[in-house]
Amino acid sequence: MLDTNGTATFFKVTVMLENGEPVFSYTDADDTPVTGDITFTDAGTVTYQLNDRTGKGLKFVGVGFNTPFDGIVDAVTLSSDGQLIQIIDLDRLPGCTEFQFVLSNTANTLLVLSPDPQVINVPK
Amino acid sequence: MLDTNGTATFFKVTVMLENGEPVFSYTDADDTPVTGDITFTDAGTVTYQLNDRTGKGLKFVGVGFNTPFDGIVDAVTLSSDGQLIQIIDLDRLPGCTEFQFVLSNTANTLLVLSPDPQVINVPK
Amino acid sequence: MLDTNGTATFFKVTVMLENGEPVFSYTDADDTPVTGDITFTDAGTVTYQLNDRTGKGLKFVGVGFNTPFDGIVDAVTLSSDGQLIQIIDLDRLPGCTEFQFVLSNTANTLLVLSPDPQVINVPK
Amino acid sequence: MLDTNGTATFFKVTVMLENGEPVFSYTDADDTPVTGDITFTDAGTVTYQLNDRTGKGLKFVGVGFNTPFDGIVDAVTLSSDGQLIQIIDLDRLPGCTEFQFVLSNTANTLLVLSPDPQVINVPK
Amino acid sequence: MLDTNGTATFFKVTVMLENGEPVFSYTDADDTPVTGDITFTDAGTVTYQLNDRTGKGLKFVGVGFNTPFDGIVDAVTLSSDGQLIQIIDLDRLPGCTEFQFVLSNTANTLLVLSPDPQVINVPK
Amino acid sequence: MLDTNGTATFFKVTVMLENGEPVFSYTDADDTPVTGDITFTDAGTVTYQLNDRTGKGLKFVGVGFNTPFDGIVDAVTLSSDGQLIQIIDLDRLPGCTEFQFVLSNTANTLLVLSPDPQVINVPK
Repeated sequence: MLDTNGTATFFKVTVMLENGEPVFSYTDADDTPVTGDITFTDAGTVTYQLNDRTGKGLKFVGVGFNTPFDGIVDAVTLSSDGQLIQIIDLDRLPGCTEFQFVLSNTANTLLVLSPDPQVINVPK
Repeated sequence: MLDTNGTATFFKVTVMLENGEPVFSYTDADDTPVTGDITFTDAGTVTYQLNDRTGKGLKFVGVGFNTPFDGIVDAVTLSSDGQLIQIIDLDRLPGCTEFQFVLSNTANTLLVLSPDPQVINVPK
Repeated sequence: MLDTNGTATFFKVTVMLENGEPVFSYTDADDTPVTGDITFTDAGTVTYQLNDRTGKGLKFVGVGFNTPFDGIVDAVTLSSDGQLIQIIDLDRLPGCTEFQFVLSNTANTLLVLSPDPQVINVPK
Repeated sequence: MLDTNGTATFFKVTVMLENGEPVFSYTDADDTPVTGDITFTDAGTVTYQLNDRTGKGLKFVGVGFNTPFDGIVDAVTLSSDGQLIQIIDLDRLPGCTEFQFVLSNTANTLLVLSPDPQVINVPK
Repeated sequence: MLDTNGTATFFKVTVMLENGEPVFSYTDADDTPVTGDITFTDAGTVTYQLNDRTGKGLKFVGVGFNTPFDGIVDAVTLSSDGQLIQIIDLDRLPGCTEFQFVLSNTANTLLVLSPDPQVINVPK
Repeated sequence: MLDTNGTATFFKVTVMLENGEPVFSYTDADDTPVTGDITFTDAGTVTYQLNDRTGKGLKFVGVGFNTPFDGIVDAVTLSSDGQLIQIIDLDRLPGCTEFQFVLSNTANTLLVLSPDPQVINVPK
């Protein structure tokens, strides 16, 4: 279980249109560009805040995994306005997993996926 | 716009667990294995019916695209029980796109993504 | 079950106000007026696209039946924006059924019903 | 607007299967059979409580009208478990309207409609 | 159970900002200020209509109780637009309970609670 | 804004019935009883995990505030199964605020409120 005090990491997820399609980029709290990948040395939470520059009314609806039962990520929470999503690692099970952000948009009824899976690494 | 009569194609999406993680396979109406890729020679709809063999309470929540604004797929419809999802091509805009299925599960709050993007091809 | 290729039929549902109340009319893909009734000679799907001219913010919420368990219609799917609804007949069980469209509106908290039940006929 | 004290009327809506299809009947608080029609001599509310004997997991999702903008019924409220629905007449606008109950079921993705429209009469 | 005709009481709930925070006040159907407390001499329903003067997009999401299982209030119904909420007492179980309104807002993802619990009294 | 690494605090919220009504108690990650109050010395997130011992099917639906616009708490995120709720302080605005947990239950359509407001303190 999480130590009483774990680590809270924060990223901003900026989505812009390039040739009419969404492009994702990540910055940390100091606005420094990062990959968006996470290494959990502590148990803790990672907060992603959406910065939608597409004009397509994007909202987070969840975080998608090809291996959702590997136990690396324990839970996902979402704000009611779809602007914040948080990934929780409660127990630091060692290993790696990958995920893609899943978003809705107001222009059509297709969901939007971030392309490059974000890597989560929990070292032993 | 769709000809008054277009083509309705049907696939079954079977999801099973292998080493504890979801594996997706596709069959057509005759139970013949297929890739799940689609070629729209007509405008029409493609219906995917979920056959969940994982015991993890899977439900379709949508269809995700890296390029959701390319106009190849016009809309997605979903049944209220999450068991059927339909992709609609109304206008046969030529080109290619790819998608992944997005599903919820009852074991945890992570979303499930099918791994190999399904290809949709609309020839000229 | 559905032949690998069944028939996809498309209708536009136009709703206008007459004396302040909704009036429903139906056209096919060539904009030819039709009754909106369906005859399934093939298994397949019927797609209804909403053309809301009332200014009352209409959205499809479902399709309502007096005899929902007669097995003529197997499932209904709905787009997340309430603009498209699809009726699926997977198995061509012979017989007749009727339905009314059910819509929400943004002017009040009453649901809107289309009046004349649409007939679905599946000949032997 | 509603007098500080208006009238609260209560009905039970029993749904049973006859030949596999839903049949609706109405009783008042004394379990006396009634038509389910309402006459508003006062402003007030009418509460309908669902008594589902079909085994199909019925829930109220709303009340549907062919003439939803006639102002006879001002609003509809629904309990989160779909077992109670209330119709509100705040201003006793004289006139008549009709409605059908709209319910979801757990056996399929079709909505259920009560057949014989219930009449609401607001005398001058 | 409710007498066929019980009492329907109506209140308007006005929410304004004072020093940037919500302040709740209550009036009856004659616009006379009241406490918002209820005494059920009859079984019946109490209707609360929201009058949001905050500019923060308030909507009722429910009614909250510290003692939700005391049986004084039997059910709560809510309009789909979050503007009306109704409290139902079906059986006049004697006793007292208290509640706070729970509302969402469009400015942030926190819920809003009315401060002074409203008292419901059902005399023997 | 949050330092790239802030603090993630974790609490378990146990709800039991006493005399038929919910009673809330709080423990930290070491299962040590705590008040549930929070002091944010860092920016960060606080995670509350529900331990429902009532048998009433409780789920978090949000966090309620009498002063939701005081800026002390910036956002709330919720897991789709209602078992985890997270409070986010991004900017350490100094001051105090209070909140109550808001939960739904499966026994009735009333919401459940925790009684003693939890205090959040952000020292200068």
